[in-house]
Formats: sequence, C-alpha cells, structure tokens
Amino acid sequence: MKIQKEKQNRYEIRFSGSGGQGLITAAVVFAEAVGVYDGKYVCQTQSYGPEARGGKSKAEVVISDQPIDYPKALELDLLLAMNQAACDAYFFDIKANGLLVVDSSLVEQYPTSRIITIPFTQIAKEEIGRELVANMVALGTIGFLCGRVDLANLEKALLARVPKGTEEMNSRALQRGIEEAQKIDVQGLPRAVMSEDDDL
Amino acid sequence: MKIQKEKQNRYEIRFSGSGGQGLITAAVVFAEAVGVYDGKYVCQTQSYGPEARGGKSKAEVVISDQPIDYPKALELDLLLAMNQAACDAYFFDIKANGLLVVDSSLVEQYPTSRIITIPFTQIAKEEIGRELVANMVALGTIGFLCGRVDLANLEKALLARVPKGTEEMNSRALQRGIEEAQKIDVQGLPRAVMSEDDDL
Repeated sequence: MKIQKEKQNRYEIRFSGSGGQGLITAAVVFAEAVGVYDGKYVCQTQSYGPEARGGKSKAEVVISDQPIDYPKALELDLLLAMNQAACDAYFFDIKANGLLVVDSSLVEQYPTSRIITIPFTQIAKEEIGRELVANMVALGTIGFLCGRVDLANLEKALLARVPKGTEEMNSRALQRGIEEAQKIDVQGLPRAVMSEDDDL
Repeated sequence: MKIQKEKQNRYEIRFSGSGGQGLITAAVVFAEAVGVYDGKYVCQTQSYGPEARGGKSKAEVVISDQPIDYPKALELDLLLAMNQAACDAYFFDIKANGLLVVDSSLVEQYPTSRIITIPFTQIAKEEIGRELVANMVALGTIGFLCGRVDLANLEKALLARVPKGTEEMNSRALQRGIEEAQKIDVQGLPRAVMSEDDDL
C-alpha cells in the first residue's frame, strides 16, 4: 500500500471538530480549488455512522495525480483538529511525520510535541470580527502547509462558494490563515521516532 | 456484488447538474439528515478530475444499514439530473428499474420513458421567488421518492445548514418538492426490459 500511495502521490487531509464549525464547507472549498481550478484529481468525503450524534464532525480530502480508487483517508498526511474531542479521536490516524494542526483557542491538551498550534477561533473573533470564519482562517493555514493547492485558486474557490456580501470577510480570514502558516518552521518540528522497520 | 449490496441494503443517489446549482449543498443536507438525525450509515462524496472544468457537477450519497466500505456510487438507485449534460452523461449509471428524476425546465431530451420530470427551477423561480432554491425543491422530491429518510429530519438538517434569514424560503422549497413527489405514481412508470439473466 505504501508503494502504491507514493506512486500516486496521494495526499490525505482530514478537517475535524464540531458540527457548526464549517468544516465541510472548508473541505468543499479546498476540493473545488484543487479539482476545478488546479485541475487535479481530488475526492471530498463525509462519512456518518450512528456515532455522528456525538458532536464530532469530520470531512476528508484526498488528492492524487491519478484517478482515485479509494476516496476515504487511510493514513493522514495532515489532520486539522478544531476541538479536543476530534484531536483525541483522530490523532492516531496521522501517518509518521504527518502534520497535526490544532486550534489552540479550543484544544488544551496536546497529544504530541510534533504539533502546530494556531488560535484560529480567536483570530476570527478578534481580528475579523466573526467567530464563524475560523474555518476559513484554518483553511488558509492548511492550504499553505500542505503545498498541494495554488493559493490564488483557493481564494477563487472560496469566493465562488461563500454567501454574497461575506466575500471580503472570508477572504481576509483566508489570508490571515496563510500569514500564520508562513511563520511556521515545519522542518524544525520534532520528528516522530521511527523504527528501522518503518523504512522497509 | 449484487448479493452483497442487497444484504447491506445499500442505496445510491447522485445529484448532478451544473456548478452553481447547489447540488453539493443538497447532498450534504441529505447526508446529515440520514447520518446525524436518522442515525444511519451514510457517505457523501464529491469527486473531481481534470474534466471538472466542463461545467458538470455531481455529488453522491450512499446509504446503508451497515458501515460503508466503498463510498462511491457503483450502480445508481436514483439519479437527479438538473441539466441536459448531466442527464446524458450519467443516465447509463442507473441500475435496472432505478429512478431518473430530471428538471424539466432545463432538460429537453429524455433518454428513456422511465423518467420523472418536474420543473424544479421553474417552481423555485415562479412560486418561491428565487431560482437558487431549485436544489431544495429537488431535495424534497428526492427525499420523498427514495423512502430512505425521515422527512421531518430532512427539514431539520436543511434548517441547520442554510444561511440565517433564508430558512423559511428553503423550507417552503423543500415542501413544494415533497408535494410534487406525492403526485408521482412510481409503480406506474414503465419498467426496464430485463433479460432472464438479470434475475440470476
């Protein structure tokens, strides 16, 4: 599976948090930027089971250079966790040296030192004036960090989907998220300890 | 595969048309009604490839009594086509005696006599006053015809997702779609001719 994933250049992202935080919207905008504007293969998926009532919400995006046979995420390259429950539940789905990005306004206990913490909700509330656009601040950060989407296309996709009259606010939120990501030294993050077996 | 699908009681719907017709939103509302409110297993997927620039848009929902391994639609139980291009492209993905529902305001050439035609866009424009809610008229029709979602939960999911201030309009659109569906005699539709092999 590992060889196949590398051959396809597959990249998996999960947006997670609470219902009402706009994670599906963020994932749909991301997928449209990559699929419609960048012209790559991308699948965007929501899966619900009886546990969906528990208040956790997740939305996944899988990007590839080739047609995607299996659209669900198997091993995350990047997990966004916008609350503690999602961080706790999904942390173990990240692959070795994948990225964990959390909203430090809402997540207090960090499961690892290999973590990127940005107060998305606080930035949205205090700087943009609307807590609701925390999802777009996070989207900007994810877009920059993953390196798999043209950031101009990400903004185009966002502008095409948000309600009329909210374009500027959402666009500012996205830009603030990109700025926050630019400050991060990803190479300087602690690396997961890997056994020799992991290289096989 | 047929036996496995029947055992799982799997049901597959594709919402298709043009970008901008709100098909992803309709599919997400449907999936949330089934997954969050009805508490069943459901996957909702958007897949994009380099052909996504062509103006066709599609969103899929797969419902099952059991966890869903493969979230893409394989053989449609129901296809909604909101324009001619989508009707032409996806008609062949419907299984024998599955349902084809088209927006007769926008689809002129019907590929089969086994078809349900409702002018969703015209109803939205002339009766609700906003062409944009044609997706919710269609959602009401699909919800009723598929028989797989509690219609009160469909409205709850819709109200939780549409922009504030548009709740009543969207709710009226949904109800109009349900009313249109109630007029349809599904059992009276022509049935696909099946060879004896199909029963094996």
